[in-house]
Amino acid sequence: MGGAGKQALSLDELTQRLARFAAARRWQPFHTPKNLAAALTVEAGELLEIFQWLTPDQAAAVMADPEQAHRVRDEVADVLAYLLQFCATVQVDPLVALADKIDRNELRFPPAPQE
Amino acid sequence: MGGAGKQALSLDELTQRLARFAAARRWQPFHTPKNLAAALTVEAGELLEIFQWLTPDQAAAVMADPEQAHRVRDEVADVLAYLLQFCATVQVDPLVALADKIDRNELRFPPAPQE
Amino acid sequence: MGGAGKQALSLDELTQRLARFAAARRWQPFHTPKNLAAALTVEAGELLEIFQWLTPDQAAAVMADPEQAHRVRDEVADVLAYLLQFCATVQVDPLVALADKIDRNELRFPPAPQE
Amino acid sequence: MGGAGKQALSLDELTQRLARFAAARRWQPFHTPKNLAAALTVEAGELLEIFQWLTPDQAAAVMADPEQAHRVRDEVADVLAYLLQFCATVQVDPLVALADKIDRNELRFPPAPQE
Repeated sequence: MGGAGKQALSLDELTQRLARFAAARRWQPFHTPKNLAAALTVEAGELLEIFQWLTPDQAAAVMADPEQAHRVRDEVADVLAYLLQFCATVQVDPLVALADKIDRNELRFPPAPQE
Repeated sequence: MGGAGKQALSLDELTQRLARFAAARRWQPFHTPKNLAAALTVEAGELLEIFQWLTPDQAAAVMADPEQAHRVRDEVADVLAYLLQFCATVQVDPLVALADKIDRNELRFPPAPQE
Repeated sequence: MGGAGKQALSLDELTQRLARFAAARRWQPFHTPKNLAAALTVEAGELLEIFQWLTPDQAAAVMADPEQAHRVRDEVADVLAYLLQFCATVQVDPLVALADKIDRNELRFPPAPQE
Repeated sequence: MGGAGKQALSLDELTQRLARFAAARRWQPFHTPKNLAAALTVEAGELLEIFQWLTPDQAAAVMADPEQAHRVRDEVADVLAYLLQFCATVQVDPLVALADKIDRNELRFPPAPQE
């Protein structure tokens, strides 16, 4: 499973680790909001690529295959990495942004009636 | 800024809130891994759309415009929402996936030499 | 079907019309290969958005609904417009590129055996 | 540039060649509009990936490098292939769709005034 027994880092700690990683490789000049939004879209496409020809049954079973499961975790990591780095450049807290959006959506989409 | 003074929810709490939100609207049948990966890509594209014609200077100033800043936070929220819901369907912990990926990348990309 | 009775323009003629359209609005400085590749991805995502929550049956019936059908044609037009403009900036003939690719794929993927 | 001296196929001929290619490999069941729209987005992302970290000057010079130029033509071919196959499944003529869209855009975006 990867990371078994390891204490998970928080989003803040991961964001700081990504910043140190980019700084040590002098990649910061490339990490503009526009480039990071492009990279985020590209990586989301790579995650979608795993599923594009699969039937619903095959898609539901994708994690049973160790190689496919690794690829899924790898693309999830890339999407999250670029999302956190994007958020750092524009100083948006993604947790606050999402909590605010759910608040708005609860007003916009009323729940289905109970039967 | 939205959410000022509010205690931020953790990723786990947001994931649970998203699950309750979808269940109350009976949206779970639509939330297959394939559909959620497609929706994630679409929303990442909407974030990129904000930046697609901007010069680097304009892109760096995007958060100074309240309307654009709102749009950025809104698309960040959508990307994170679909990423968390995708991870819930395939039972991947995105924080562990990213920590593991940074571990691998530290071996793969050696830091630039100090001058 | 839209354009019934109209003589279709060729790809070359459409490319020239797009170039005149952009020039008349002084949009050429924005039409760099990078920006056009980003816009192409964004528009492909908008086409995908129409289908993202649909079942296979609903997706197959999408053109029976005039509003959805219009949206599909509109996004197809946007994807083709940015693809042609991208190709013009890098001087790639998309018809030749595709014919060459099919040639390569015929060697790479042998046909299924006849039963 | 690739295929020099070869008579280019028209869009219609390429669409027919793609249909025969898929039929010979029994790939038609996978070629639903939803899957093809997903594949189109994924390939557009792969084209964008070539440019994502490039400066404007580097992006303008991308075709001077034979390996990069080949990759650009290859991704252009994939985008066009999935666009044509998508259009075939929904019976949209992409040339007519684009001509109609330019007509609408000429009304929507008036040209810049002459100086």
